[in-house]
Order: sequence, then structure tokens, then C-alpha cells
Amino acid sequence: MLNVEKIRTTRERIKDATLCTPVVRATRLSLQLGFDLYLKLENLQHTNAFKARGALARLLTLSDAERQTGVIACSAGNHAQGVAYHATRLGIASTIVMPEGTPFNKIKRTEDFGARVVIEGANFDDAMAYTLDLAQERGLVLIHPFDDPDVVAGQGSVALEMLEQQPDLDAIVVPIGGGGLIAGMAVAAKAVKPEVQMIGAQAQIFDAVKAQIDGTEPHFAGASLAEGIAVKAPSPRNVEIIRSHVDRIEAVSEEEIEAAVFDLLSHEKIVAEGAAGAGLAVVKALADQMQGKKVGLVICGGNIDSRILSTLILRGLVRDGRITRLTFEIDDRPGQLSQISRLIGEAGANVIEVIHQRMFQSVALKQAELDVVIEARDIGHVQDIIGRLKEAGFNVRVEGG
Amino acid sequence: MLNVEKIRTTRERIKDATLCTPVVRATRLSLQLGFDLYLKLENLQHTNAFKARGALARLLTLSDAERQTGVIACSAGNHAQGVAYHATRLGIASTIVMPEGTPFNKIKRTEDFGARVVIEGANFDDAMAYTLDLAQERGLVLIHPFDDPDVVAGQGSVALEMLEQQPDLDAIVVPIGGGGLIAGMAVAAKAVKPEVQMIGAQAQIFDAVKAQIDGTEPHFAGASLAEGIAVKAPSPRNVEIIRSHVDRIEAVSEEEIEAAVFDLLSHEKIVAEGAAGAGLAVVKALADQMQGKKVGLVICGGNIDSRILSTLILRGLVRDGRITRLTFEIDDRPGQLSQISRLIGEAGANVIEVIHQRMFQSVALKQAELDVVIEARDIGHVQDIIGRLKEAGFNVRVEGG
Repeated sequence: MLNVEKIRTTRERIKDATLCTPVVRATRLSLQLGFDLYLKLENLQHTNAFKARGALARLLTLSDAERQTGVIACSAGNHAQGVAYHATRLGIASTIVMPEGTPFNKIKRTEDFGARVVIEGANFDDAMAYTLDLAQERGLVLIHPFDDPDVVAGQGSVALEMLEQQPDLDAIVVPIGGGGLIAGMAVAAKAVKPEVQMIGAQAQIFDAVKAQIDGTEPHFAGASLAEGIAVKAPSPRNVEIIRSHVDRIEAVSEEEIEAAVFDLLSHEKIVAEGAAGAGLAVVKALADQMQGKKVGLVICGGNIDSRILSTLILRGLVRDGRITRLTFEIDDRPGQLSQISRLIGEAGANVIEVIHQRMFQSVALKQAELDVVIEARDIGHVQDIIGRLKEAGFNVRVEGG
Repeated sequence: MLNVEKIRTTRERIKDATLCTPVVRATRLSLQLGFDLYLKLENLQHTNAFKARGALARLLTLSDAERQTGVIACSAGNHAQGVAYHATRLGIASTIVMPEGTPFNKIKRTEDFGARVVIEGANFDDAMAYTLDLAQERGLVLIHPFDDPDVVAGQGSVALEMLEQQPDLDAIVVPIGGGGLIAGMAVAAKAVKPEVQMIGAQAQIFDAVKAQIDGTEPHFAGASLAEGIAVKAPSPRNVEIIRSHVDRIEAVSEEEIEAAVFDLLSHEKIVAEGAAGAGLAVVKALADQMQGKKVGLVICGGNIDSRILSTLILRGLVRDGRITRLTFEIDDRPGQLSQISRLIGEAGANVIEVIHQRMFQSVALKQAELDVVIEARDIGHVQDIIGRLKEAGFNVRVEGG
């Protein structure tokens, strides 16, 4: 049975090896949103995600014999690293099963923490089936990422800390995948402060828990940027707790999640993974109803692929109008690029790239297509520049704009 | 006169409007370095830099008449935002002068905080001359970024907080530009804990303070990634404090600074600007001498241009061998790309981009140059892949590798 006493006891047991991560006020986002937003930085937790709490909580319940034999988990994400980190620290051997196609970086990070990584199974379900077989065969204890009361109690410690660090929170927004984090947090938070509003965040394309609560069909559509909460089969036990302890669940689009991750990076200087972005996206979607309130958001992790992050930043700049690709159809004669560059410079923008290729073009042979990537202040500035270019007679359009 | 009493008094005065930013242990970097590294996250301070402390300290010393007339500052960076933010908050009009060519984003952020931004002067010195004229003409109080005892006392509050949050620090590493942060911190730290070692960090291509202390010629070579500490004329008062209170100063290369910013982002999930990167680069350079110690580093700010950050991430991945561009000279006949892709896939890497262009090539007409961008685990994996490709008869080289 999960209750606040269990969460309190668990918190004491994991305390020495867990960071009490800071809660900071999001200055710029609070300004934009019009209310106070506080961020619980679990991206600064060991292994850069809250998952290390639950993994440790479970590992500490093992018998000496179980510790000797070792543990196993099936995860390509934060749970894998959390188990590996704490198992190694406690001198327990850990085996982590990951499906084929898992990015190298996740394998490497997990191995760096001392786990033995086994790649097996075409997808998560196959990998899990293999994990269960291996666990049985070798007598290894399976550490489940979310369907386990000890794990959930460990995650619940996040709420106890938050409400000590910022007792005046009116609402707490928590990303939902398997439901472990929000189940533990909701039980703890409602016990400590019954009037606090608990709000869950899911991805629209992976909304299993929301669908179960709403009694609708879930959506599972492709890969979500919020991969940490892209769970098809949440824990029934957690769903029951969510039903009784969580006030509402909102689902957000991939575009909203992407924009939110960019906001956290550019405005708050915080590296957040997609799941945390889903949380901020829900905060933004509910902004009208949050006016005058103090809202807490769990930045549940910071494990986002660097290559994706790099691209996400550029796309954010494009969205804000700071980088724009202009496509010109020009007569293929000298002096055109020079005139374009001059007009852009006079408008106060910078040319950062010119792509002038003659193959694969949709225009007539005697014409040429020219792409010019510019850096401007914002969307309005871009409109001004395009106006000037059109006035000078250029046939120009914004690529993807 | 700057002493710890003044810093203590200043800290009390600015306390309510300043974040006591968290100190966190850098888990992965500590593991790599072999000693405990703690980060003081001033990138989470208001305006995302410690500069807001000093600016506020100075603004609070203004007379009512001075508040009415307003203040002026010359800065394209963190000082501009610090002054703008706190002046607006206190109902004081602020004018910020920035040199021509200042990035749009810095203008916009400063204007967003409520300042009037004036662009004037071809470089910083010209902008400063104009600032002094305008200050005199309009009776505005100049808020200097570092050559001011009240400003320096404000920055010193960082050390008081750090040594309360992590009293067992043996050394504190602080980036040095005009010298305000380290001067204030060194006076405070040596008073609170005389045995703490104070270490300054400069960029090799902007080492004015180090050169003055060492009695050598300073280097000023182009634009540093650590633009926040690229100061040619540090404050003589600060330099004297540094001479008496700072144990050593180290200068690091642009490559080291770039790698350090990438480390903070990818390992610690922290968005740090170049100046903070210089600090970490010094920590890394001194790692042998730091074994067994507890080292604190001030992450002085997080204001790094997003486009530069995006590029820096990709370059970091290239450095680590996670992204590599292979250039092939192939006979221009069908099937080659297919064979190359198959070999790369069999070696366990992913092809993420193929560039196959026929103009601007250095090879003979009947040959073609093909660039294939791959994602691999690390440098060793790349070597393995190249070995397999050469064995299969391909003429391949690593671009820039």
C-alpha cells in the first residue's frame, strides 16, 4: 500500500545518496506567463533524472542474497542509468536490456555507470520478454521502472522536497509516462497540502493514462520527442492512484513540446528532455486558468540527445524569425547576389549562408534559384526585409514560412 | 574601501531581489576529474548572470534625485541586462549604450527588461566615450560594470553564499574579465575562510589581468568565445585586490573553453556562457593538483548565443567521434553509395547525411567525390569503420579529422 508514511520512510532511506535538487523561479517564463512558475530541477539529479530515486529505493529493499545475485532492468532511458548508477555504487551487479536500435549514447552512458548492457529484441515488448526470461534463468531481481510501490515511493520524495522548498505552491505539474512519478508525488502532496492541485502532462501522440482516465481510445502515433513518457502500458496500480489523487491531465502536441524545450533552454538556461517540455507545454496551455497562482513544474530529466538538441535550437531560431531561409528566383546573370546582399544589409540583417545550386531546380534553365539564409531580429524584421526585396523587384519567398 | 563588512552589508541590502542560486555537485565531471567539483549556478540568477547583483547594489546607493534622473551604462552583455532589469524594477529609467554590430538578441533582451537602448560607436571604446558624454549632458549616473566598490561588493556576495552552501570547499575558481567578481569574492572568501585557495580564469587571447599580475605583455587576439571576460582594461583597484587576495590565475585556449561549455551542457545539463567555460577549462587544466580537494566553480552566466550553442554542440559531437564526415573518391558509376551504406550499417553506425555534388570538386571528371556523414559511438568506432571501408577498396578520408 502506498501512503505518505511509506514515502516519508523511503525518502529518509534514499536521502544520503539522492540530491535534494534546487527549486528555482523561472524568471522570464513567469514574466511571459503572468504568474509565478517554479522549476524543480531533477535534470540535475544523479544520472540527470528523477528515475535514480525510485531505482535506489527499490535496490535498498533487496536481501543480501538478492544483492549477491544482481538485478536486471529493461530500459533504454533514464531508468537504465538510474539502476546502473546506484547498483554499481552499492556493489550490486546490474544487467540492462535495451532493444535493437537504441542510440549509442544511451548504451555508452549506461555502461559508463557500470552496468552490463544487452541489446536484444526488435522493440520494447520483445526486449521486456527477453528480460523476464533472463531474470528467471539467472535468478536476477527485476527492477521495474514504474510498476512497483517502492519505486513509486522513491519518486514521491520529489513532492515532499518541493513543498518544503516552496510551500506556497497552488499547483504542481508532472509529466506522466508509466505513472510512477505522478502517483508517488500526488499521494505525498495531497497528504502534506490537500488543497494543492495536481496536474498531469502527456504527449498527445502517447496518451495512454489520459485515455484510461477519460475512458477514450489512446493514441500511439510514432516517436514522441518526449520519449521518456512514451509508455503504452502504464501501471494499473498507478492509474488508480492518479484517478483518485490527480485533478486533471492535459495532453500536448509535439510542436508544443518542442517549443517548450527551446523555451527552457533559451529563457531559463536549462537543458530539459522532451518529457519536461511536455510539462511546460501544459503549463503554457493552462496559463489563463493559472493567473494569480504559484505553479510548480518538475523538470523530470535532462537527457536529450545532443544532435536533436542542436537541431531543436536552430528550429527554435527559425520559428522566432531569427534565422530565415529566403528563396529567390533570379535571372541567371551577374550582380544579382550582390544586390540582394546589399538590400539585406541595409535592412539591418546579416547574411549567414548562401546556397546557389543549379541542379534539382524547379525553375526554367535560364533562371536560377538562390537560397539566402539570413539572421534577423524577429518575424516583423523579416517581413520588413521581404518588403524591401520585393519593392526592388525580386521574386522572393520564405522557405517553410 | 572594500572589506568583508561592506560585502556583508551589501548582501543584506540586495538579498530580497537576488536569487541565492543553488550549488550543485557536478556528478559526471567529478567522476571524470577524480575530485569533487561544485558548481554555483549564477546562470540561474536574474538576467542569467551574476552581474545583476552588482548592478542592484549600485542602484540601491542612488539618491532620490539620481533615481529621478536615471542611469546609464555601456555594455552589450550581462551588465546591460542586469542594470535594465533592476532599474526598471525600482522605477528608475535606464539608458544602455551598445556599439554597432551588437547582436539583435542582446538588444532585444535588454529592451525587454525595460531599458532604452542606444546603438553608437564602432567599438566598445567609442561607445564608452559616447556614454560618458551622454551621462554628462543629461546628468545620468554611470553604472560601471566592474570599476566601482559597490558593484564589486555586490559580486562578492556570491562567495558568502557559496561558503555557506558548501563550507568545505578547498578552492574556488572564478572567471576574470574586469576583475569585479573575483575581487569581491576573494575579499569575502579569504575573510570567511582564509585557507581557501582563490583561482582566476582568463582566456589566453584576452589575458589582461594575468599579464598585469605576471608583469608580461597582454594578448588581445580577436573574438573570444568567452566574450563576457574579454576585457582589455580591467580596473586597477580590482587588480590590486587580485594581487593581494588571489592565489593564482590560469589562462586557457579557445579550444579548451569550447570543450568546457560542451561538457557543462552534455554532462551536467547546464547552459553556460564562454566565461564559465573558461572557468571549467582551468579546473580541468589543474586537475592533477586538485586531487583530494573540493573545488567550487562559479558558473557566472548562461547567456550564450543560441546559434553559436547549436554549432558548438555539433562540433562537440564531431570531436567525440559521434558525428564524422567521411569523404570518398569514387568512380562515378552506380552501386557505390549502396555498397558504402551497407558497410557502414554492418559496422553498427548510422548514415545521417549524404552529399554528392559534382561541381567544385578536386578530382578528375570521371571520378566523383562523395561526403557521407555518419553517427558512430566514438573515435575508436570511427577507426573501425574506416578500416572496413579501406579493406573493401574504398579511397576514404576523414574530413577535418
